[in-house]
Amino acid sequence: MTNSTRPEHDLLGDAQVPADAYWGIHTLRAIENYPITGKVIGEYSDLIKSLAYVKEAAAKANLELGHLDAKKAEAIIKACHEIESGKLHDQFVVDVIQGGAGTSTNMNANEVIANRALEILGYAKGDYSKLHPINDVNMSQSTNDVYPTSLRLATCLAIPTLLKAMASLSQAFADKAEEFKDILKIGRTQLQDAVPMTLGQEFSTYAVMIREDEERLKEAVSLIAEINLGATAIGTGINTDVGYAKLAIANLKKISGVDVVISPNLIEATQDCGAFVQLSGVLKRIAVKLSKICNDLRLLSSGPQAGLNEIRLPPRAAGSSIMPGKVNPVIPEVVNQIAFEVIGNDVTITMAAEGGQLQLNAFEPIIAHSLFKSIEHLSAGCNTLKTHCVIGITANREVLAERVRTSAGLATALNPYLGYENATMIAKRALQENCSVADLVLELGLMDKETLDQILSPAVLTSPGIQSK
Amino acid sequence: MTNSTRPEHDLLGDAQVPADAYWGIHTLRAIENYPITGKVIGEYSDLIKSLAYVKEAAAKANLELGHLDAKKAEAIIKACHEIESGKLHDQFVVDVIQGGAGTSTNMNANEVIANRALEILGYAKGDYSKLHPINDVNMSQSTNDVYPTSLRLATCLAIPTLLKAMASLSQAFADKAEEFKDILKIGRTQLQDAVPMTLGQEFSTYAVMIREDEERLKEAVSLIAEINLGATAIGTGINTDVGYAKLAIANLKKISGVDVVISPNLIEATQDCGAFVQLSGVLKRIAVKLSKICNDLRLLSSGPQAGLNEIRLPPRAAGSSIMPGKVNPVIPEVVNQIAFEVIGNDVTITMAAEGGQLQLNAFEPIIAHSLFKSIEHLSAGCNTLKTHCVIGITANREVLAERVRTSAGLATALNPYLGYENATMIAKRALQENCSVADLVLELGLMDKETLDQILSPAVLTSPGIQSK
Amino acid sequence: MTNSTRPEHDLLGDAQVPADAYWGIHTLRAIENYPITGKVIGEYSDLIKSLAYVKEAAAKANLELGHLDAKKAEAIIKACHEIESGKLHDQFVVDVIQGGAGTSTNMNANEVIANRALEILGYAKGDYSKLHPINDVNMSQSTNDVYPTSLRLATCLAIPTLLKAMASLSQAFADKAEEFKDILKIGRTQLQDAVPMTLGQEFSTYAVMIREDEERLKEAVSLIAEINLGATAIGTGINTDVGYAKLAIANLKKISGVDVVISPNLIEATQDCGAFVQLSGVLKRIAVKLSKICNDLRLLSSGPQAGLNEIRLPPRAAGSSIMPGKVNPVIPEVVNQIAFEVIGNDVTITMAAEGGQLQLNAFEPIIAHSLFKSIEHLSAGCNTLKTHCVIGITANREVLAERVRTSAGLATALNPYLGYENATMIAKRALQENCSVADLVLELGLMDKETLDQILSPAVLTSPGIQSK
Amino acid sequence: MTNSTRPEHDLLGDAQVPADAYWGIHTLRAIENYPITGKVIGEYSDLIKSLAYVKEAAAKANLELGHLDAKKAEAIIKACHEIESGKLHDQFVVDVIQGGAGTSTNMNANEVIANRALEILGYAKGDYSKLHPINDVNMSQSTNDVYPTSLRLATCLAIPTLLKAMASLSQAFADKAEEFKDILKIGRTQLQDAVPMTLGQEFSTYAVMIREDEERLKEAVSLIAEINLGATAIGTGINTDVGYAKLAIANLKKISGVDVVISPNLIEATQDCGAFVQLSGVLKRIAVKLSKICNDLRLLSSGPQAGLNEIRLPPRAAGSSIMPGKVNPVIPEVVNQIAFEVIGNDVTITMAAEGGQLQLNAFEPIIAHSLFKSIEHLSAGCNTLKTHCVIGITANREVLAERVRTSAGLATALNPYLGYENATMIAKRALQENCSVADLVLELGLMDKETLDQILSPAVLTSPGIQSK
Repeated sequence: MTNSTRPEHDLLGDAQVPADAYWGIHTLRAIENYPITGKVIGEYSDLIKSLAYVKEAAAKANLELGHLDAKKAEAIIKACHEIESGKLHDQFVVDVIQGGAGTSTNMNANEVIANRALEILGYAKGDYSKLHPINDVNMSQSTNDVYPTSLRLATCLAIPTLLKAMASLSQAFADKAEEFKDILKIGRTQLQDAVPMTLGQEFSTYAVMIREDEERLKEAVSLIAEINLGATAIGTGINTDVGYAKLAIANLKKISGVDVVISPNLIEATQDCGAFVQLSGVLKRIAVKLSKICNDLRLLSSGPQAGLNEIRLPPRAAGSSIMPGKVNPVIPEVVNQIAFEVIGNDVTITMAAEGGQLQLNAFEPIIAHSLFKSIEHLSAGCNTLKTHCVIGITANREVLAERVRTSAGLATALNPYLGYENATMIAKRALQENCSVADLVLELGLMDKETLDQILSPAVLTSPGIQSK
Repeated sequence: MTNSTRPEHDLLGDAQVPADAYWGIHTLRAIENYPITGKVIGEYSDLIKSLAYVKEAAAKANLELGHLDAKKAEAIIKACHEIESGKLHDQFVVDVIQGGAGTSTNMNANEVIANRALEILGYAKGDYSKLHPINDVNMSQSTNDVYPTSLRLATCLAIPTLLKAMASLSQAFADKAEEFKDILKIGRTQLQDAVPMTLGQEFSTYAVMIREDEERLKEAVSLIAEINLGATAIGTGINTDVGYAKLAIANLKKISGVDVVISPNLIEATQDCGAFVQLSGVLKRIAVKLSKICNDLRLLSSGPQAGLNEIRLPPRAAGSSIMPGKVNPVIPEVVNQIAFEVIGNDVTITMAAEGGQLQLNAFEPIIAHSLFKSIEHLSAGCNTLKTHCVIGITANREVLAERVRTSAGLATALNPYLGYENATMIAKRALQENCSVADLVLELGLMDKETLDQILSPAVLTSPGIQSK
Repeated sequence: MTNSTRPEHDLLGDAQVPADAYWGIHTLRAIENYPITGKVIGEYSDLIKSLAYVKEAAAKANLELGHLDAKKAEAIIKACHEIESGKLHDQFVVDVIQGGAGTSTNMNANEVIANRALEILGYAKGDYSKLHPINDVNMSQSTNDVYPTSLRLATCLAIPTLLKAMASLSQAFADKAEEFKDILKIGRTQLQDAVPMTLGQEFSTYAVMIREDEERLKEAVSLIAEINLGATAIGTGINTDVGYAKLAIANLKKISGVDVVISPNLIEATQDCGAFVQLSGVLKRIAVKLSKICNDLRLLSSGPQAGLNEIRLPPRAAGSSIMPGKVNPVIPEVVNQIAFEVIGNDVTITMAAEGGQLQLNAFEPIIAHSLFKSIEHLSAGCNTLKTHCVIGITANREVLAERVRTSAGLATALNPYLGYENATMIAKRALQENCSVADLVLELGLMDKETLDQILSPAVLTSPGIQSK
Repeated sequence: MTNSTRPEHDLLGDAQVPADAYWGIHTLRAIENYPITGKVIGEYSDLIKSLAYVKEAAAKANLELGHLDAKKAEAIIKACHEIESGKLHDQFVVDVIQGGAGTSTNMNANEVIANRALEILGYAKGDYSKLHPINDVNMSQSTNDVYPTSLRLATCLAIPTLLKAMASLSQAFADKAEEFKDILKIGRTQLQDAVPMTLGQEFSTYAVMIREDEERLKEAVSLIAEINLGATAIGTGINTDVGYAKLAIANLKKISGVDVVISPNLIEATQDCGAFVQLSGVLKRIAVKLSKICNDLRLLSSGPQAGLNEIRLPPRAAGSSIMPGKVNPVIPEVVNQIAFEVIGNDVTITMAAEGGQLQLNAFEPIIAHSLFKSIEHLSAGCNTLKTHCVIGITANREVLAERVRTSAGLATALNPYLGYENATMIAKRALQENCSVADLVLELGLMDKETLDQILSPAVLTSPGIQSK
């Protein structure tokens, strides 16, 4: 076909771009430069939408300030609306790992919007004399404010999904805690038998742990919502009208529905990645807790014969290609692995943030990629853990009850009445002679049965309270 | 000497303890078990003080509730006061890296306090029938609430020193920002020349970065101040009177002056290390920023001839044993290394937190050791950076001014007036022909001198604003 | 369509599988259980091929030992050949992050091979009474030997691509070292001017660094080639004929062309992930070096006016959407980011390896995913660095020469003749008075011109040698 | 006292040094600059000895080449001998975390040796006109070759201790494996019951894991033994005689007894930290394995009633201040924490190595500190694990035997005879009906008793082999 490509021009010279591509020569350079992962930015739809929100907000501000004429502005805004509604994402083709501090991502957005706007205006793609990707779409902007602003906005858009998944998982644990609230069991410290508690108490801790992290995540998001739009190249706001930043950010807030605020020092905001480090730190904290919970679930359900065997996870797959009947804790296992990935991502983000130099951090693309992975995979992990595991967990009541009945750990409850050293003697003898603590206390005449029964009653064992002697 | 040791007894049997030691057999076991680092917990004086605060708070609560008689309680409290005032710290001899989830640390405290209290009461050390390390000093307590409570308290005591060091460093940068506010320079993105800014703006970002982190640190401390005193073994409060937790925590708050609050779920609080992970995440964030700042200082002061040579750090040492006259940026270098250590500590803490199982995390000692190192070394780093480097920094005004005058980066300022493509042409020619952007614009007749002068004036270059065309 | 699904059965019950799918019910369970990343194992073609190699090797051994009849064996082998040649990879649909220790991956392979073999034999997909995914395809095998063996094999297949990319990059640096061998410049330590060297010497270090790592990588691969095929469930070889392991491994070696050897202790080999940790450690080392090299390239090419400006990287993209004419070091930047990712992956792998329990490590899937990413992205990074950056680097000869001529660092060369303290005095005065070291020495009459010229000649400055005084 | 200080002079001016200090003004600057950890380099005796070895080797080479006169050389060598024998280490007072790329460490050595040599020669300390710390002691040297060479040498001196501890620990596991070789137990994968093995097989894996790492460690040491002595400032060998490097290294090899070799490219060797990254990677691998082993030991000894309770660790301390009779796995716990520290250290080292710039890595001091900690703590960990835990482990034979007898996992052994699906049915029924697999097989008439007994015999269950059907 004669029209299968169109010529474009940049600082490096001329090149042919596929005629039907909405992206242009700057994007083409990026495709050639970064053949790294095969995964393209178009797969992060929150990022693509955010770019469109920012471009729309800027266009409106430029229009209001009289720097962009109405016809161009309207076409740009219309193109942005299409992208915001999910269209044209396949035109965002730059690799997620890219050099250039996000310039290629910004250029990709400028070009797609410009070419779609040209079409809307009835012009051919590439006819940039009519509407220009940089002069018009990127007006009053620099990659160095557009890109971090879009990342932050995209993060704000993505996190509610994670918060919802966490809330749902937390509720599932709380429901189990309620279901298991009367089941007494032996608690463990350092993997050694300790003192009684209820299985409900055990599960309630998981609910609490996750709920707490919802709070931390919300705090981190509030830092993320501080943006530097209007900072342009290095934060001085060069090439912007004095009223631009305020207008653009007000527009962005309205368009995106996210409570973005302007950063108090735009030069600092343009170079600092602290908010990403903070957010990643919180995601890592979530990962640590989820991993700990999954370790516990795997441990408590170990067996079915030669393990703790206190709870049963719902079977999700034949566990083995060789061991018939084997069922494995596959759902907690996948969540553990997501946690390890998130912890690794945190190191990547830390190094990238530390590597920033002078007025910019050139490594935001890997920060973005790592953060999006962490957020998305944690969301998926919470969902699969809740749906395919937690809600189907059952208790092995007989095993749990028998263990409490025979536990030498009950000797702890005797401390306030008999002293630590007597209690130690009883615990040791109970273990050696394989008899119950209660029987031994009665046999040795150390306490009358009524008092003892009271001391060893479930309610007393699992909450504060010392009986009058 | 016949009396050079005294016999003591524990679960494992009998052993001889040095007669003059305030610590006893449990501590002796720890000395034998953990010959790891040679560094002992007594070196963390905030931790030792915190242990004494907790023991005092517990003794008072036990006294008030009638479980501990007044004579014993007073002796225990008096012994605690001595430790709080800095005495007997040399009796805390357990290695900072220890097994047992802090049990040895708690036992060390119980024994030192018991033996000092025995002396106060006129008894010999080791005469535990008169006052017992566990029955009396540890009454209503378990390592599992005493140890985490003490760690958290110690952290609350240690962090104000860091906050003060950060505030002081931040102020030093702010002072320099004021000093340098009129010095124009070329900003850089991706290490390439960008657009003008002032050296004051550059230094103000460092002030802002650190000031922001003071806020994050305060937030993290508020999480750390949630304690589980009264939880005892696993959080159920076994062996405590119903009123104990409330009383003990009120006492602790009063004694220590720290706003500790009780955790809403004590079982969760006893096993979860999330607050430590959060705090370490914030310390890591501080480290990342300090490292970035130090990287910048080293870069900006590179030279003196073949480097950027924009600022001069005060010379602190002859830089080389072979290169005469060489002066190196040794203070930023030491801070970079502290940052790397803190980032490594964060991974250690993360792994230790993830390794918790069921009702307890056995790895809190390494979390404590890592946190204390991070806090102390960051404080030291901020102090040395401020005192030995920042306050003595001077600007190389001639170099900075000349670079702005000749910079092709000034072409950016022309965008709104001449368009991106014209400006690109000018920038390229200015570089190729080694002439100034201003001269070129005038030569090409693209703008009159008055307009150009206005556009290229320092105030306009370094803040938002587009001149009317 | 009525026949759009077929029924299958497993431990959990019945389910419908798409009629045209080569995968079966076990894979279906995995699809439901692990909706994590959207990236499927079929994208790792080396892994898919390796699974087929292993299955073929096992089938041949089973045939030779008389446990599998010839007809079945031939069909299985034929199906494996198809997969080895690149076919059916789209049937490997399990998420790369998965629970179950790789069971789903192994089951996916068993099912695809069984169903393709059934077709070859003229039966319908799912007619497992004729040829069974587990009894036949998985005969004498367990996930616990098949999966680690396949991972190791896949790694061995993938690494030569990385080695080739490294060799090519190393050669490119060596070529530049040759090209730049006569260009004198000032070396720098701690970013401060040090003593002269040639630009060729500087570039040769990059060649050497990478070449050394080729050696480390080859060593690590030799550990990776130790496999546990025949170990089955836990390393005891249960369900295998005594001669099986030897035969199967010999077959695998022949089929795959990789020098696999059997691990000396199969129980250890089945649970230990040390070889993956070692390999990841080496990949991390490569990442560290590449990142250091890219940091240097970005620094040396900083400018063009206000930076070091010693070398020029080939321009690869317009660097800025706002700053006309700006060109950034985008290729080194993308490689830095790959390095940060690889370093993060190493932490993920470390945690996953540490998390193994008793006779198996359940977390090998995330190890595999992380390793494959590291290997693939490092290969891509080396290639783009070489092609789009290194081979086009040019030297800024004038700047380099002038800096040597005027450098106070030349005073170091005077140490052996004048002593450290005299040399210090000269260096300080040269800097203060902005004059050359040579002029100063002559002016002060400390040395005659002939001797001085000899001492300051390029060859003498850049290699050992003290002139006779 | 009038003579309590002596005046010294450096680039920065004059200062008073304590009269009795062997260190001088350069060390004084370091004391002021780096008040970071309170831990001084003198605590790393291998490092101090190595510095002396290097200084002695250099002095001898300088003597042989005629650059240093015999009297001075002899005094320097004598002073070095004293340090090598353990004297004067308290004079090495620079903080372990220091800026300046090790310059202060090198200067500290130069000054101590010079002042001790002056004393030997009958002069006063500080009388540097007679013998100079830099001109004489540091002749032909730079920090940039002396410091890395000393670090590498110190590492070579320290690692044999770790290797010995590892060998001893590995042997202890091997001894236990022999002791437990006839004890049948149920192996576990993914914490679920798998198939039988012997406890001896389980323990033998621990022996093998550690033994393998001894090999890896030896390989890493061979890389570490490549030194850059003679490289001086940046690797070009400036200020050295042409024969110096060869002579000095030969001397060093002879004096230290370590097989040091010269690096093939001294410029690369002076800036690259790859060997440290490699060594740290291996130390991390050891840590990962030790942690996994300790996790297993803690798990297998969990109980004593409500846990796996398969082995018993020797009690090492009363486990709890509240729970009488409780004994915890304190020794494995301390080793886990060492492992977490080593893994964190690896991240610190990685970042420090990545931060190197151009001709030097300024961050070697933190690399050194981290490496020495890792090596020393791992050695201590191996020793305490062996002595206080492994050699005292006993098996709980009754529990182990009973679990095998009743295990549904035995159904796996039936696969080759009855097929996977029949075996699955038997495993499920055995679990549901709480009966033994053997009884069920006989009851269902699926196999005769004799065949079944053979299939389920310990030897057959725990090694390859399929019985003729």
